[in-house]
Amino acid sequence: MVSVSDLDFDQWAEALRSRFEDNAQKALPVGDGPLGTLCEAMRYAVLGGGKRVRALLVYGAGLVTDAPIKALDETALAVEYVHAYSLVHDDLPCMDNDTLRRGKPTAHVKFGEAQAMLAGDSLQPEAFERLAQTELSDAQINALTFCLARASGLRGMCGGQMIDLSSVGRKIDIDTLRRMHELKTGALIGASVRMGALCGNPRLYELVQEALEDFSAAMGLAFQVVDDILDVTADTAVLGKTAGKDLAADKPTYVSLLGLEQARALASQCEERALGALERIENCSDIEKTTCRRLRELARYVIGRNH
Amino acid sequence: MVSVSDLDFDQWAEALRSRFEDNAQKALPVGDGPLGTLCEAMRYAVLGGGKRVRALLVYGAGLVTDAPIKALDETALAVEYVHAYSLVHDDLPCMDNDTLRRGKPTAHVKFGEAQAMLAGDSLQPEAFERLAQTELSDAQINALTFCLARASGLRGMCGGQMIDLSSVGRKIDIDTLRRMHELKTGALIGASVRMGALCGNPRLYELVQEALEDFSAAMGLAFQVVDDILDVTADTAVLGKTAGKDLAADKPTYVSLLGLEQARALASQCEERALGALERIENCSDIEKTTCRRLRELARYVIGRNH
Repeated sequence: MVSVSDLDFDQWAEALRSRFEDNAQKALPVGDGPLGTLCEAMRYAVLGGGKRVRALLVYGAGLVTDAPIKALDETALAVEYVHAYSLVHDDLPCMDNDTLRRGKPTAHVKFGEAQAMLAGDSLQPEAFERLAQTELSDAQINALTFCLARASGLRGMCGGQMIDLSSVGRKIDIDTLRRMHELKTGALIGASVRMGALCGNPRLYELVQEALEDFSAAMGLAFQVVDDILDVTADTAVLGKTAGKDLAADKPTYVSLLGLEQARALASQCEERALGALERIENCSDIEKTTCRRLRELARYVIGRNH
Repeated sequence: MVSVSDLDFDQWAEALRSRFEDNAQKALPVGDGPLGTLCEAMRYAVLGGGKRVRALLVYGAGLVTDAPIKALDETALAVEYVHAYSLVHDDLPCMDNDTLRRGKPTAHVKFGEAQAMLAGDSLQPEAFERLAQTELSDAQINALTFCLARASGLRGMCGGQMIDLSSVGRKIDIDTLRRMHELKTGALIGASVRMGALCGNPRLYELVQEALEDFSAAMGLAFQVVDDILDVTADTAVLGKTAGKDLAADKPTYVSLLGLEQARALASQCEERALGALERIENCSDIEKTTCRRLRELARYVIGRNH
């Protein structure tokens, strides 16, 4: 199994990324004719790239509640499908109008706008369809469905995107920026952790739930702060997407509002808070001492990454 | 209750349409700032119009399996949310580029493209979120979720839209046209019937399941055939959307492929098949004789409508 403790973090992450890629290859639909073309666009959106942070969080959180790997596989697919669809829609001309993503042309550049939009629209129900077929109790599946739906819509990702849209070229304050990212990125990051843990032992889940929410909140914030830092410090080749584009679009970011050094300090605070939450989990008497290892490594990875 | 037998069909349908409208008014989110604007767009897409055929099918099918009205309310919302989102996305410039819907400007004309797309993207998870909170058993909720997801994605609505996109301006045969509509319209019509029935007694559902599928298939086909007939015979004011637009866009339709008279004959055959399926249900010994009354009336309504 991919959680064996003799793998270091990079090996563990790589093993799971390749496991995810295999699963997605098999799970994503194929077809003939026009449906085949739509399948191709769906596959293009999901396959072949990305850090898979959300999938790794699903697997990492699943370790905490001793979740069965097959359920984590399905959950990771569902979460990454939703993430992939959101990237496709965000890149469309009527949104961010971006042409490069994960080092490749964006979906609408490759398939045209209509088909890209439709591929996104298809990935969303595909995610719920997978969850509905996961080998878990009906109660667990419902909890997963609710969690993913909540994180994807108005109270999550879409809501954040709406704040984003309405703030381009305007001055917004740090609270609005934070709220935007809590919804746009944080909600699905949090859902990944929660859903991974929900796949496991319900009694353990209840024990760790609160600390995991704290961990997720810190991770969601850190993720975006680091993204904003990288937008000004990294270059396009390393990033795999257009660097400096937030600056160019006059988008408010943590860096533009706080300055680079303060933004870096905020990222460090987030790391401390995330690691503190994990420590609280490992101090529970019913929890094995090394159970949070992968989540801890993930926190360090997300905050220390250079792309 | 809205099923009392002394209401004629028009009264029953009107009572349920207004019940649905009230429910949707309360259920659809409201908010301040940018989220408030997104909520407005979601509300605009769902509220104030439409024949609510899918909602009526949910309620009508629920009567067959003695489903609780509250569960039918939630299910009707979920199905109409998905339908509403699909209309918003289909009307976008990169799709059908339509400016009039239900007698009003389309969502992107009113709110701009980005926000219209986002409103659609938000309605989809909102539908699943509602289902997940329905007062039914977890097993029933999962069945509903699966059913809605299947009908919305590649194997349903989105798949049909893809065939539609790829067939504009091209010659397609009657089998392709049929397949397109089975997916694009038929899948969600079928899901409405199935989901309404799934909300009720599982034992009754099992008894009627096969006949209901037959009913749904006939209804889905009839619905589209009649739509195509109306596109050439009705005018824009009655239709509430642009009449003759399929003809103008050189879209293949049942009328363009079969001619008006043959298309009308096909609609009649569908009606017979739908009514025959309901008769089989009422011949089951465990089923009350009048249980299919509303579905029967709905079949006649869908096929006899003039808009």
